[in-house]
Amino acid sequence: MTVRNRRKMVGIPRGVISRLPVYYRYLSGLSQAQEKISSAELGKALNMTAAQIRSDLSYFGSFGLHGYGYRVNELKQHIAEILGLDRAYQLVLIGAGNLGRALASYKNFRLRGFIINAIFDSDPQVIGEELAGVQIQAIDNLEDYLQENACDIAVICTPREASQAVCDRLVSAGVKAIWNFSPIHLHVPDDVIVEHIHLTDSLLQLSFQLRQRTAPNQSEPSN
Amino acid sequence: MTVRNRRKMVGIPRGVISRLPVYYRYLSGLSQAQEKISSAELGKALNMTAAQIRSDLSYFGSFGLHGYGYRVNELKQHIAEILGLDRAYQLVLIGAGNLGRALASYKNFRLRGFIINAIFDSDPQVIGEELAGVQIQAIDNLEDYLQENACDIAVICTPREASQAVCDRLVSAGVKAIWNFSPIHLHVPDDVIVEHIHLTDSLLQLSFQLRQRTAPNQSEPSN
Repeated sequence: MTVRNRRKMVGIPRGVISRLPVYYRYLSGLSQAQEKISSAELGKALNMTAAQIRSDLSYFGSFGLHGYGYRVNELKQHIAEILGLDRAYQLVLIGAGNLGRALASYKNFRLRGFIINAIFDSDPQVIGEELAGVQIQAIDNLEDYLQENACDIAVICTPREASQAVCDRLVSAGVKAIWNFSPIHLHVPDDVIVEHIHLTDSLLQLSFQLRQRTAPNQSEPSN
Repeated sequence: MTVRNRRKMVGIPRGVISRLPVYYRYLSGLSQAQEKISSAELGKALNMTAAQIRSDLSYFGSFGLHGYGYRVNELKQHIAEILGLDRAYQLVLIGAGNLGRALASYKNFRLRGFIINAIFDSDPQVIGEELAGVQIQAIDNLEDYLQENACDIAVICTPREASQAVCDRLVSAGVKAIWNFSPIHLHVPDDVIVEHIHLTDSLLQLSFQLRQRTAPNQSEPSN
């Protein structure tokens, strides 16, 4: 990334940043043979207007060519760099239940450079078991492991009751980024980043919208 | 919900709506014995200010009592109603891979009234297998099943290549709400609701923020 582009990143709206993975995902899915793409094509594929696309991407410098569109590889590489995908990330996962297992087995993460190196659980029944090429360790080993191994991101997939305590241990051991799948709001110091995936919340957004659809009268005055 | 409250729901900011599941989740986690809660307590637990809490909840009528706080049960029940949790939802799930299996086994959904009645897959190896009490069916049965059974929400956990085709079949069969876990943007008619969970996008938000942390100089002028 050039110094000029770095400087431009200050003050990029959160909405624009949240759409970068969407662009990246779409561009990554394109055929290798496709050299260029127009903002109109991108917009059509992603349900946005060409103007929105141009506006979003203008924050990151000018790699659009007038009357030509964007060079796919250049754009993809640039977005990858902004997203921090020009390096690998070392992950640990805590909680080898159904969801933890599914995540550990998800090949897409490794393809993007997110490597799960260690998996911890408190259940003697699963400790020692191999999961996606990694042996499940006792949670008691967590601090020892983190002292000797780099960990960029910890994935919390424990039951609700255990999550905050696990989070506190991770933070004490120096972990600075947490990907939280447990259905609680985690409390962390200001220098720790948390990204939540709350499955039930997402489902509730669906039920809310379904409710709005089936009760159209609520938008009309009642008298 | 009273007519007055229904009318008030028009024009509620999306941000407020997106926080309702958070409130609901937190209130549901409280001890049955706790009868009331103040906006200050709620705010502290959810990293918000008391004023934000009061502002959010004021959209849904006045169930706060001056100098008393909110009655937990009343508030929880009211939010549940707004979120459409006063009924059960019939779900089908397509794609019995790792993630599909994890979701089918996730007990929280059923507890909230989201019932997975049928699971479909295209792999002869898994068809017929039982998963969380439901027998996996051939995807060929999808239309027949949907003709004879109610389906409020379809959960798509198929590989990327299959997702749009599966989505099209669901929409043709009359499904109006889709919970999409596959890493593509689905195209649907305007009357179909889609809620996405893009795991990799969430991970990229983490890597983006980690990158910002490790490259603090990008916020300073270079000359």
